[in-house]
Amino acid sequence: MKVNGKQYRTIWLDEDNPHIVKIIDQRLLPHQFVVEELRTVEDFAAAIREMHVRGAGLIGAAAGFGMYMAQVQSPADDPEYLRRAAEVLIATRPTARNLAWAVNRMRQEINEESTSAARECRALTEARKIADEDAEYCRRLGAHGLSIITEISRRKQGPVNILTHCNAGWLAFVDYGSATAPIYAAQQAGIDLHVWVDETRPWLQGSRLTAWELGQQGVPHTLIADNTGGHLMQHGMVDMVIVGTDRTTRCGDVANKIGTYLKALAAHDNGVPFYVALPSSTFDWQICDGLAEIPIEERSDAEIRYVSGALDDGGITRVAIAPPHTRGANYGFDVTPARLISGLITERGICGANEKEIMALFPSTAG
Amino acid sequence: MKVNGKQYRTIWLDEDNPHIVKIIDQRLLPHQFVVEELRTVEDFAAAIREMHVRGAGLIGAAAGFGMYMAQVQSPADDPEYLRRAAEVLIATRPTARNLAWAVNRMRQEINEESTSAARECRALTEARKIADEDAEYCRRLGAHGLSIITEISRRKQGPVNILTHCNAGWLAFVDYGSATAPIYAAQQAGIDLHVWVDETRPWLQGSRLTAWELGQQGVPHTLIADNTGGHLMQHGMVDMVIVGTDRTTRCGDVANKIGTYLKALAAHDNGVPFYVALPSSTFDWQICDGLAEIPIEERSDAEIRYVSGALDDGGITRVAIAPPHTRGANYGFDVTPARLISGLITERGICGANEKEIMALFPSTAG
Repeated sequence: MKVNGKQYRTIWLDEDNPHIVKIIDQRLLPHQFVVEELRTVEDFAAAIREMHVRGAGLIGAAAGFGMYMAQVQSPADDPEYLRRAAEVLIATRPTARNLAWAVNRMRQEINEESTSAARECRALTEARKIADEDAEYCRRLGAHGLSIITEISRRKQGPVNILTHCNAGWLAFVDYGSATAPIYAAQQAGIDLHVWVDETRPWLQGSRLTAWELGQQGVPHTLIADNTGGHLMQHGMVDMVIVGTDRTTRCGDVANKIGTYLKALAAHDNGVPFYVALPSSTFDWQICDGLAEIPIEERSDAEIRYVSGALDDGGITRVAIAPPHTRGANYGFDVTPARLISGLITERGICGANEKEIMALFPSTAG
Repeated sequence: MKVNGKQYRTIWLDEDNPHIVKIIDQRLLPHQFVVEELRTVEDFAAAIREMHVRGAGLIGAAAGFGMYMAQVQSPADDPEYLRRAAEVLIATRPTARNLAWAVNRMRQEINEESTSAARECRALTEARKIADEDAEYCRRLGAHGLSIITEISRRKQGPVNILTHCNAGWLAFVDYGSATAPIYAAQQAGIDLHVWVDETRPWLQGSRLTAWELGQQGVPHTLIADNTGGHLMQHGMVDMVIVGTDRTTRCGDVANKIGTYLKALAAHDNGVPFYVALPSSTFDWQICDGLAEIPIEERSDAEIRYVSGALDDGGITRVAIAPPHTRGANYGFDVTPARLISGLITERGICGANEKEIMALFPSTAG
């Protein structure tokens, strides 16, 4: 997608040095646009853990390139190096499904080869393939999701009002995004639309990232506190909700950014369609009951006690918003039960959030 | 309640000069404890509008003293002065019920007298009475609410976990608070309890005020993002919700801080009791359907685009958290329908959130 008119992906290989991967340091957005170079598997682990990169698809793509870098670094006399690197990467974000998915896929591919050179080449090819697939799947699910927005647009006067939570935009994937892909497709199709952007405390992915990327693409949007969506839905000001997911069970439960469940409840209470957009890489085929089986990441309470932002002079700083010594709890995700979800928008089409319809769309994948 | 061990109310008359009213400037909490002097009705209007004082009961008490000050300032040759002052005060916060309630009560009392001196004396007496009543009603509803907490405590091991949204603490009233009054009563009764404090974006009443006042009284608590309550309830980590209200219809609908409705939905979905605590001054006896009939205040989107807090050196500043030129929408309240409310805790006892039970408890008031 575009940044100041120039085309970008969220992760790419350096043009001159194939041992350098470049990312946008998302901690500094929207105040500063900084491209960061990652050169070691430790760089990748830190970048994922500390959220220089984040979001379902981008975490997967970064893990792919991280495993490639682990193979580059891997000493010939240490057959365990790659396994340990895989463990380090997988441990960085416990809820994210794409992480383990990409790491395991990379290990399988790398292990097909025996020489270092061949393994490195295979790893690079596979890492790029994961990234390309992510972009392509998001593009496709955007086309499928477009049909829902088109249908709503036909039935009403004025803009289609879409509410989204967190950032499941192109910044969360390699390109296009999941929740945003249908929005960008609708924009291209000339549909009149407007997006309500949940600011998404504590990390403020909505105000910092989603508002920024929608602004860069020229999509009309309004920023709101996370508390606001229920009120808007009660007053007919939301036509549909689209969110992403970090892990989706084969029965259609969805782990997404904390607070998603509350918006799903409000949508259900007000008859507003609630869709989850996802490339199939976020499916965890092993599990059915998301509430019981998906581990929920807990992060530092500094994210609750402080807010980072830009001073009037442009400098980025943090301010304390709570009394000193206040303790906070910081759960990163919650689980939205399938019963509250109108449908899943995937790269293969739209299906109900239930095992039967999911398995019908992805018959061979469940393994 | 106590601030650094010393007893305070949120509003009081200066000991030496009865034409000065003192408040705590709540915009600066928890970083600075500053007592502000109000000397004119314009001071009061600004203090209410710009939220130096806020919260259902305190807005009412401030409006009472504001009308007293209007009477003090009132020129003998301008019979319309008091009416205009009343309009100015009522316009400061459109959702708050106590505002019009207190202003109208003051006007009635003042109009009972004919001389300036008698009117001023009557006004002062009534303003103090409104404040004293507010404190006393909160104390009483705390005693009633205690019975609910006691009952939960009998049924479970470990602390009673109470979730609250916004600040319906003593800072929102003259003393004790509404949602916090049963909590403070339970603490005094030696019940093991713990409070989940919603930070309450955008104004952060939870992290700035509720966390601070619970900390000052020594009540165990944990600060959370507003997005978190649903997850906690899904996992059995909340035993009850208690919130306040800024306007309550005679049928039991409740307008409270934006986001309250989302917590009520989550409580309902998880079988968690959801109580609203209120002195009867927040009742609007004229209306039944809160969603259709309660005006919802909209505030500046600067509260959405910026966050204020303390730098490491203690200075208070604001930081931008969104891209420049991003537009925000800032609805101050939402309406929780009576069907989601387990009960209303009032100064006269606990009743169901429905017209019949409310009218049975307040038979003469509906007028």
